[in-house]
Amino acid sequence: MNLQGTSLLAGQFVPAHGAPFHAQSPLDGSELAPAFFAASDEQIQQAARLASEAAPAFARTSFAERAALLEKIAEELLALDDVLIACVHAETGLPKDRLTGERGRTMGQLRLFASLLREGSWCDARIDTALPDRQPIPRPDLRRTLTSLGPVAVFGASNFPLAFSVAGGDTASALAAGCPVVVKAHPAHPGTSELAALAVARALTHCGLPAGIFSLIHGNTPAQGLALVRNPFIKAVGFTGSEKAGRALFDAAANRPEPIPVFAEMGSLNPVFLLPQALSSRTEPIAEGLRNSVTLGVGQFCTKPGVVFGVSGTEWDAFKRAFSAQMQKAVPGTMLHGGICDSYRKSVESLARSGKLDLLAESAVAAEPGKTQGQPAAFATRAATYLATPELQAEVFGPYTLLVEARDAAELLTLARSLHGQLTATLHATPADLAEAAPLLSLLQEKAGRLVLNGFPTGVEVCPAMQQGGPYPASTDSRFTSVGTAAIQRWARPVCFQGFPQEFLPDTLQNTNPLGILRTVNGTLTRDAV
Amino acid sequence: MNLQGTSLLAGQFVPAHGAPFHAQSPLDGSELAPAFFAASDEQIQQAARLASEAAPAFARTSFAERAALLEKIAEELLALDDVLIACVHAETGLPKDRLTGERGRTMGQLRLFASLLREGSWCDARIDTALPDRQPIPRPDLRRTLTSLGPVAVFGASNFPLAFSVAGGDTASALAAGCPVVVKAHPAHPGTSELAALAVARALTHCGLPAGIFSLIHGNTPAQGLALVRNPFIKAVGFTGSEKAGRALFDAAANRPEPIPVFAEMGSLNPVFLLPQALSSRTEPIAEGLRNSVTLGVGQFCTKPGVVFGVSGTEWDAFKRAFSAQMQKAVPGTMLHGGICDSYRKSVESLARSGKLDLLAESAVAAEPGKTQGQPAAFATRAATYLATPELQAEVFGPYTLLVEARDAAELLTLARSLHGQLTATLHATPADLAEAAPLLSLLQEKAGRLVLNGFPTGVEVCPAMQQGGPYPASTDSRFTSVGTAAIQRWARPVCFQGFPQEFLPDTLQNTNPLGILRTVNGTLTRDAV
Repeated sequence: MNLQGTSLLAGQFVPAHGAPFHAQSPLDGSELAPAFFAASDEQIQQAARLASEAAPAFARTSFAERAALLEKIAEELLALDDVLIACVHAETGLPKDRLTGERGRTMGQLRLFASLLREGSWCDARIDTALPDRQPIPRPDLRRTLTSLGPVAVFGASNFPLAFSVAGGDTASALAAGCPVVVKAHPAHPGTSELAALAVARALTHCGLPAGIFSLIHGNTPAQGLALVRNPFIKAVGFTGSEKAGRALFDAAANRPEPIPVFAEMGSLNPVFLLPQALSSRTEPIAEGLRNSVTLGVGQFCTKPGVVFGVSGTEWDAFKRAFSAQMQKAVPGTMLHGGICDSYRKSVESLARSGKLDLLAESAVAAEPGKTQGQPAAFATRAATYLATPELQAEVFGPYTLLVEARDAAELLTLARSLHGQLTATLHATPADLAEAAPLLSLLQEKAGRLVLNGFPTGVEVCPAMQQGGPYPASTDSRFTSVGTAAIQRWARPVCFQGFPQEFLPDTLQNTNPLGILRTVNGTLTRDAV
Repeated sequence: MNLQGTSLLAGQFVPAHGAPFHAQSPLDGSELAPAFFAASDEQIQQAARLASEAAPAFARTSFAERAALLEKIAEELLALDDVLIACVHAETGLPKDRLTGERGRTMGQLRLFASLLREGSWCDARIDTALPDRQPIPRPDLRRTLTSLGPVAVFGASNFPLAFSVAGGDTASALAAGCPVVVKAHPAHPGTSELAALAVARALTHCGLPAGIFSLIHGNTPAQGLALVRNPFIKAVGFTGSEKAGRALFDAAANRPEPIPVFAEMGSLNPVFLLPQALSSRTEPIAEGLRNSVTLGVGQFCTKPGVVFGVSGTEWDAFKRAFSAQMQKAVPGTMLHGGICDSYRKSVESLARSGKLDLLAESAVAAEPGKTQGQPAAFATRAATYLATPELQAEVFGPYTLLVEARDAAELLTLARSLHGQLTATLHATPADLAEAAPLLSLLQEKAGRLVLNGFPTGVEVCPAMQQGGPYPASTDSRFTSVGTAAIQRWARPVCFQGFPQEFLPDTLQNTNPLGILRTVNGTLTRDAV
């Protein structure tokens, strides 16, 4: 591995600048080579300017050209082979099997957007033909399609160093929409970021596209990301991470002279509601499934269930015993980096000392601090305490969950009503439970982007029907998703052509429908030519 | 006409409160009866709370029920007959013919959204069926449809007292999406607002829907609107008006603990580019068409062309003479209210005194101050002055435009590049002009939501292909439109159901496809059952 350690602007590494920083391996706390250097203000400005200069040409590329680019990026990622996997493993401590799977997911995302582009109907083309004889005034010919927003700033997430980082879902969907991308690398995996950035740069070269379409900037303080978001060439922002960091970027974007849209996928408790008959008939499977979901990836998924609600009674007591036994059997795991691990340990200690919660169970095996391990832990409390303690709605990132006991179905509804916006809400319920829980189901639909029945929220499928995003603070704009094909809609805006001859129209709007896409022609959805 | 003068909350007039205000007739400056009373903070809070309480039931109504509501509102507006037209005429000075047309447009919008609902495919339903045998892990059944955002605050616009006010496009699209609406009435037409609000309230009663779905609040200072936007029950905002007011609402919404989306359709210059061959072959029609567009509705349309660019030469000189003659023939007209008229007069006087512009022409007939009239005026300047004077990019609301002369095609491109975001950009060009102007066309596509060729931007068609909205400051989110069927997308968010049995799914997602809508099933667009 021969890493350069500086930002990659339009395919060129910039000179080193300022104080160096190093990634640390969470596996043993060792400092990893080489040194990395945060981008200077001037380099950030240059990355954004290069993106802006490349934007018009990229916006005019055909869907087929962009599809070929995405497919080539996938190929280049795979070509990095074990070098990539070894680097991510060293930087994040994530198991190699998981990383091989995540690389597959990353390539799958790139190819999914490629196939969306090749199909072409995503651009929502609409044609209303002229009505020259209409009274009292004629109707002109009007044709509307989606075009790219312009340069997008993408923030790499620490918990998906491949699938939601440099060449991940935000980048793939922005490139698919024809938007140049400037990625702010996550400082916990800078080497992984450099390798993935090179894969993107190579693919651009291979496809004969302007190098300015993609740049990577490094940074180990909030300053670099904020400078990027405030840069006037940047037209939209994609982010996955904490509520605090996401809100800071949202505020910076909203306070610009020209505000820009930010899609920040942030914190979520992913509440789980366990209804009595389901609990009674499936005590053990629910307890085991919940344990797996809470501890999957050492609890470092956006969709980890962080709170579990049930109604007091023998079913709930039995479930608590079963879940307690499950959590004791769980094992500590290496977390993504020291900062996350410290934060997790402090949160759990503070909750233990708060006097608000009872410790239900910890894993029998203790965490090894030298290995940056997080120890699975479950707490329990009563609804009244939960409702009176808003701090308990803060996300605890790690293998933690909280069981909250309601007196009755009415109090369960009160608990649901108290929740902030969520990425997901899960119900375990028999048909009979569900029939009685209509108000709860209706309420959860107001609160969450995805409702899960008799399953667990972790495991976010990448497909057209997925919704990853929900009412604030789950995300900053619940009308969009960061996962699945609809994620492209974040980076596109409509443009309408009035009275244009065929040869000056985009191919999506020409009479012959050369792409064969589905279009709304005079109010009717059709693939026919006009 | 028997007007109450207080806010209408869920079908009930509230008691009068605080200091009264009156609408003034711009026709003769007279104070109109009755007195109106701004909503108190408590009344605003109550309107938002009532909307929030009605939201879940309204979100669950079928598309057919909502379509019936919209159609009934149109019917109730028509039933107000001459009482409504007379009231709007007195409050706005707009000619009765225009108002009859605008009422038709308003009813047309309501019916357009009704037909969109009856067709049903707008909800972008997506179904990915379970793959229980997939390796390494099964895929669950995932189904995604659009649901309502919750209560929407709508701000009535002064320049479309019917079509973009109480029962206008924002309200129609929000109700279509299943969102309760609280309208902040424009203080220049409070009586019109009360009548239209009663039409909506009557339609709700007729349809047996909760009255809390609609409320109207009055207010004659920014305080009432800001209180509404800051209210935690409000989940989105629709606004049409000035950049200053729109930005204030956007900032208030972005600074909430829970930020909410704001679609503000604000200022636009609607630049017109006149290319040489088009000018040479159609000098007179372009001059006359431009005059008509600049003075239509006394220049009080969002899409009025406020700046006209051309290249120096004999064609441009001939056009200037022809346009000057046209503007002299124009006649002053009554503006919407004294505030707009004063602001227009002061802007024109200030521009005349600025030393940056030459007065090209004024209407030969002078404005009558007692009739709140605005006098058509055209100014001219050179590109260098325009580029050096950013204030000239401020919108002048009224029958004003500015001709800007570039040295050559390169300077024309520089002018285009200097522009902020626009609702529209217009080109007059022959095919030969266009072939040479590819960079200009590409640049304008980055700047504007709608491109008009050989036409004029005023006259915003209400149809699926319309785009009213553009890069900031044309609107606060260029990804959406305020006119046309796509306007519904502002008020809807996706929700995904994972693993739900048929009977607990919304009808849009059931296997049998009871609504017969177009859906994306396992990646393929189809109306077939699953």
